Amino acid sequence: MVFKKVTLIGSSDESFDAAVDDAIDRAEETLENVYWVEVEEFGVELASADGREYQAEVEVAFKLED
Amino acid sequence: MVFKKVTLIGSSDESFDAAVDDAIDRAEETLENVYWVEVEEFGVELASADGREYQAEVEVAFKLED
Amino acid sequence: MVFKKVTLIGSSDESFDAAVDDAIDRAEETLENVYWVEVEEFGVELASADGREYQAEVEVAFKLED
Amino acid sequence: MVFKKVTLIGSSDESFDAAVDDAIDRAEETLENVYWVEVEEFGVELASADGREYQAEVEVAFKLED
Amino acid sequence: MVFKKVTLIGSSDESFDAAVDDAIDRAEETLENVYWVEVEEFGVELASADGREYQAEVEVAFKLED
Amino acid sequence: MVFKKVTLIGSSDESFDAAVDDAIDRAEETLENVYWVEVEEFGVELASADGREYQAEVEVAFKLED
Amino acid sequence: MVFKKVTLIGSSDESFDAAVDDAIDRAEETLENVYWVEVEEFGVELASADGREYQAEVEVAFKLED
Amino acid sequence: MVFKKVTLIGSSDESFDAAVDDAIDRAEETLENVYWVEVEEFGVELASADGREYQAEVEVAFKLED
Amino acid sequence: MVFKKVTLIGSSDESFDAAVDDAIDRAEETLENVYWVEVEEFGVELASADGREYQAEVEVAFKLED
Amino acid sequence: MVFKKVTLIGSSDESFDAAVDDAIDRAEETLENVYWVEVEEFGVELASADGREYQAEVEVAFKLED
Amino acid sequence: MVFKKVTLIGSSDESFDAAVDDAIDRAEETLENVYWVEVEEFGVELASADGREYQAEVEVAFKLED
Amino acid sequence: MVFKKVTLIGSSDESFDAAVDDAIDRAEETLENVYWVEVEEFGVELASADGREYQAEVEVAFKLED
Repeated sequence: MVFKKVTLIGSSDESFDAAVDDAIDRAEETLENVYWVEVEEFGVELASADGREYQAEVEVAFKLED
Repeated sequence: MVFKKVTLIGSSDESFDAAVDDAIDRAEETLENVYWVEVEEFGVELASADGREYQAEVEVAFKLED
Repeated sequence: MVFKKVTLIGSSDESFDAAVDDAIDRAEETLENVYWVEVEEFGVELASADGREYQAEVEVAFKLED
Repeated sequence: MVFKKVTLIGSSDESFDAAVDDAIDRAEETLENVYWVEVEEFGVELASADGREYQAEVEVAFKLED
Repeated sequence: MVFKKVTLIGSSDESFDAAVDDAIDRAEETLENVYWVEVEEFGVELASADGREYQAEVEVAFKLED
Repeated sequence: MVFKKVTLIGSSDESFDAAVDDAIDRAEETLENVYWVEVEEFGVELASADGREYQAEVEVAFKLED
Repeated sequence: MVFKKVTLIGSSDESFDAAVDDAIDRAEETLENVYWVEVEEFGVELASADGREYQAEVEVAFKLED
Repeated sequence: MVFKKVTLIGSSDESFDAAVDDAIDRAEETLENVYWVEVEEFGVELASADGREYQAEVEVAFKLED
Repeated sequence: MVFKKVTLIGSSDESFDAAVDDAIDRAEETLENVYWVEVEEFGVELASADGREYQAEVEVAFKLED
Repeated sequence: MVFKKVTLIGSSDESFDAAVDDAIDRAEETLENVYWVEVEEFGVELASADGREYQAEVEVAFKLED
Repeated sequence: MVFKKVTLIGSSDESFDAAVDDAIDRAEETLENVYWVEVEEFGVELASADGREYQAEVEVAFKLED
Repeated sequence: MVFKKVTLIGSSDESFDAAVDDAIDRAEETLENVYWVEVEEFGVELASADGREYQAEVEVAFKLED
């Protein structure tokens, strides 16, 4: 059983929870067998966004097929 | 005045805030004089959970009785 | 183009998101050209607060005027 | 569901694997529901030991009863 | 000459060495020109495993083709 | 031979040395076989103290009985 | 809007700047929408190189297509 | 309630405690409502000093006025 | 003798050296007695820049007047 | 009583334990009074080795003679 | 001008300051041109010492002769 | 095959690249079989230098003779 981890950054104009969910949603669209997620960093983008854009960098771990 | 810190991991199917509160609730059931809490790590468990389980590892600091 | 970063700690009796917003609100009152924010640490103060006070330490980056 | 983590240091005159197992063995004697273990540090004690004593500092996570 | 690094987690019911080898074996099935591996973290899974499952998170560096 | 580590925060209105000693004194009241102590962090509390309260967070390692 | 990060190691026999550019050049050949790069580590390889090979490990962030 | 943190480096030819106090003294001359201080680093300067100059880098947290 | 540190981010379309110099130049315009600078992080901005913008986050230490 | 620490990297084509022992063996050939060893990093070299070369970077602490 | 750094661990049964001085004293016996010292870690040894032995791990930087 | 690592700090009034080269030049004067170098830190000295002195702290790894 081997897992692989990829690093994604999700965003939301609502909350950090939603930014994490955004990244997980994306991961689950293209990857099967997502097992767990670790939050690496939270930030807020203001300059290039309308209002506040909450961002979450996460590591997504999924099981590789045998 | 001496404090002790213990490490707990709370969880919630709602949000990270609720996962932290889950750990604090548990700490306050068994410990008196909880003074402060430091968040060490956020994660999401997917494989062994129904849906997404938000998890928060926290350090809980409480005052020891003299 | 030179940016400067300052460290603020915002608080809220509601949530970590609101504690981050509290720090950003304060930054935007006195600083122009806030570009982004990095979350350094989340904590909860219990001893000196009524109930739970959610706290967020953030670094706020803003562009210095030429 | 709340987990607690405790820090143990196991030892062995054989190997690092055995030092980790030593710590887990001890944890399982006194704790139920041990879920996972994280290795924090490996070292070797030479001065106060006969030969080489392999040591492993680990964090042991176990589920608290409801 | 450009290298890329990917993060894998191998496992074994025997030892940490075997868990690292498990990850390298997998990498070498799908990647050519694996140059080196860095161990990021060792852990042991107990709850969802029969007995003890030794795990190793590693970064695998391989040379990209020109 | 298995050691356990606990995290304590000692304080003193005199010095950091005395804050560390405060934590060790407390540990030795309730634990036998304290082997060593690692300093994690020094700080000074001003707001909730008369004058300056020097604080030391330490990890205390003690040998578990067989 | 979701970003992904990949880790590359570029090299140059001239300078660290050129080693970073080497990695970015490679990224831009195969990825669209590269947004930013973070330098993780600089090193110099001497044993397996003619003269000095400057190396830069970088994380390359790019926007995933919707 | 918003706090700000600034980084100061105090010095003393006597001790680390005095170096920390030196930084706090300076902070309290110009800032009101200093709440707490975190020690970041201790060092000793020998080359540019008469004898040994003990230095302490600290973060000073103070409450901003509403 | 007390020093203060501030965090600046300089930029250049040429090199990391020039990005560091950019931050130091700015510091020396407004601060006297700049003693030393520590590089915290190098990055490259691509999305919001024409070409590649090399960035350097630095801590600038300067002596406070007595 | 003063200790000194030196950093060695041992290797083995067998295991990480043997790589650590390799470094300790070398230290004990040239140094007396080796007291303890801390493992800093494990890696595997594949490109310049026949098969897999397990490597261990360790810090070796030894007592200086009075 | 090139500096070299070595890692020493000094000790004292009095205080952390004296443990740092112990390491510096030793360095100055055998090295010329010691420029500065960085404290890496403080600890207290209890098991193998009479009473409490304060220990300080420091990095000592000295200028190499041309 | 055992490697040893030493920590050097090179300097240059030109650039960070030259400061790294300065340290490697020095290492190669006195050490044979230098294999690789890791950059630990970049800084700029202003107070005790004419103009800006770029500094690079590096770890130099060399193979010990059998």
